[in-house]
Amino acid sequence: MTIGDLGEFGLIAGITQRLTSGPSVALGPGDDAAVVNAPDGRVVATTDLLVEGRHFRLDWSGPYDIGRKAAAQNLADVVAMGARPTALLVGFGAPAHTAVEWAQTLADGLRDECDLVGASVAGGDVVRAGSVVLAITALGDLGGRRPLTRSGARPGDVVAVRGRLGYAAAGLAQLLAGGACDPELVDAHRRPRPPYEAGTEAAEHGATALLDVSDGLVQDLGHIAAASGVRIELDGAALPVPARLGPDGRHHVLTGGEDHAFAGTFPQATRLPDGWRAIGRVAEGTGVLVDGAEYGRGGWDHFPDKNG
Amino acid sequence: MTIGDLGEFGLIAGITQRLTSGPSVALGPGDDAAVVNAPDGRVVATTDLLVEGRHFRLDWSGPYDIGRKAAAQNLADVVAMGARPTALLVGFGAPAHTAVEWAQTLADGLRDECDLVGASVAGGDVVRAGSVVLAITALGDLGGRRPLTRSGARPGDVVAVRGRLGYAAAGLAQLLAGGACDPELVDAHRRPRPPYEAGTEAAEHGATALLDVSDGLVQDLGHIAAASGVRIELDGAALPVPARLGPDGRHHVLTGGEDHAFAGTFPQATRLPDGWRAIGRVAEGTGVLVDGAEYGRGGWDHFPDKNG
Repeated sequence: MTIGDLGEFGLIAGITQRLTSGPSVALGPGDDAAVVNAPDGRVVATTDLLVEGRHFRLDWSGPYDIGRKAAAQNLADVVAMGARPTALLVGFGAPAHTAVEWAQTLADGLRDECDLVGASVAGGDVVRAGSVVLAITALGDLGGRRPLTRSGARPGDVVAVRGRLGYAAAGLAQLLAGGACDPELVDAHRRPRPPYEAGTEAAEHGATALLDVSDGLVQDLGHIAAASGVRIELDGAALPVPARLGPDGRHHVLTGGEDHAFAGTFPQATRLPDGWRAIGRVAEGTGVLVDGAEYGRGGWDHFPDKNG
Repeated sequence: MTIGDLGEFGLIAGITQRLTSGPSVALGPGDDAAVVNAPDGRVVATTDLLVEGRHFRLDWSGPYDIGRKAAAQNLADVVAMGARPTALLVGFGAPAHTAVEWAQTLADGLRDECDLVGASVAGGDVVRAGSVVLAITALGDLGGRRPLTRSGARPGDVVAVRGRLGYAAAGLAQLLAGGACDPELVDAHRRPRPPYEAGTEAAEHGATALLDVSDGLVQDLGHIAAASGVRIELDGAALPVPARLGPDGRHHVLTGGEDHAFAGTFPQATRLPDGWRAIGRVAEGTGVLVDGAEYGRGGWDHFPDKNG
């Protein structure tokens, strides 16, 4: 059965049936809007738009992984503010010939990723579109803490990272090359596993800045450097390159996004929480240096060529 | 200049420069997520996905109107909960050949519609896509009041409406017909003017249910009937059909969405606020009757045919 056969309201009913509503959702799907608890008195909110062929390929990723990944990248953004994710809102566009089961499995992926952090899908919208489009908004609660922005890094701080780097990029490179694939790398591309506990850990250990690495370590740390008015100096030896990442492993580690590791800065005297690795320091100046030199151009710009 | 020339980060910088940040936005665009004040301790949140060719046509609507309308329909959803809109998050997808000015003018439209209610754009995402896609999330604050849901209507309540009905649908019909157009009707289609004060008015006058008419009066009141377990009985004579709506005027009034009027139910003893018209009553039973009879099938389903 297709979603065109079922119709908008039937599809919504079938999807919401499969969702669970967590304790943060005061009013879930089915009204003009959802009501989500925001006990802090502020709400952290972020949105991402994902389009077929650009952020995912239907021949490379199944609906479950697409749902997991779409949720993960937004939940990671909430965590990167030092907040606890509470809810997702999901806009879903697809052709009428899309199988109902495909859409439901995608919703299962969203739900299961939310479950990891105690959040849930609180609402959404379903529309017909020429290709699959996903618009995810994630909300979160700061629990009385100040948000961990990109602008708080100070000269003398330690730069540290929590989570894998380069795995998703190496997996994507293998898919693009079309040859033999390392299942763990391809899986890393299909379904990131952000270390969600990193936000709370960083906040509790006095981090001065935090973000999730979505566009590549050097590029993203460049945002901290720019917002904080500092230079970030990375120590290449502190960034091990696993052999399985292949001949371009170092490049993947420095420029690959989508693993959704967390990178931040901590006062020099801080004992880093378990699982965090020091990878450099904050200095006076601008930009990001790796072993004292600029590292080419890398990372991800969503309008990289002019033929679109 | 195209957005492909400018690149993602240049486009974002150019757009955020034109935005204003209202008092509800504690942290605006530029970090992993925004931080929006939610003094009530709960946040109202709704999302809509709008795709080119389905929710707007680039030959019928300019970017400014598209922005106004996209904001309006989401702000209206927040108002329909009895809440005060605080912020929008905007996902914007477009081909790389899109003119920068087009995207900036769209952002101006979003900003100006937000200004009407004291909200502002707090964050967003920009991606390349094959056609224009807009994903809007609106947030709002309940100010200590209970949310006005669809499930509170009780037999004996009065059904009332605030705002225009059928204008946008009549304007769209004229555009589709391709003949002479009434500028006011076409304008109503291009840029709805929801009476945003309706949410507070309804809440302060004890409304038992409220929604904004986005899919058509009969269809949307059907949601209140279903959620509340009641029948809605409309009085056709209380729904005047302006002559300018044309020969299908009555149909447009009963089934046309997109004017974003507000319809709700009030206890029988309530003196309706100014600007509200009583149009029927709530009874025991199910469904929606107009002058005692069911009114065909109407309104809007996003998968109306199976060729997509």
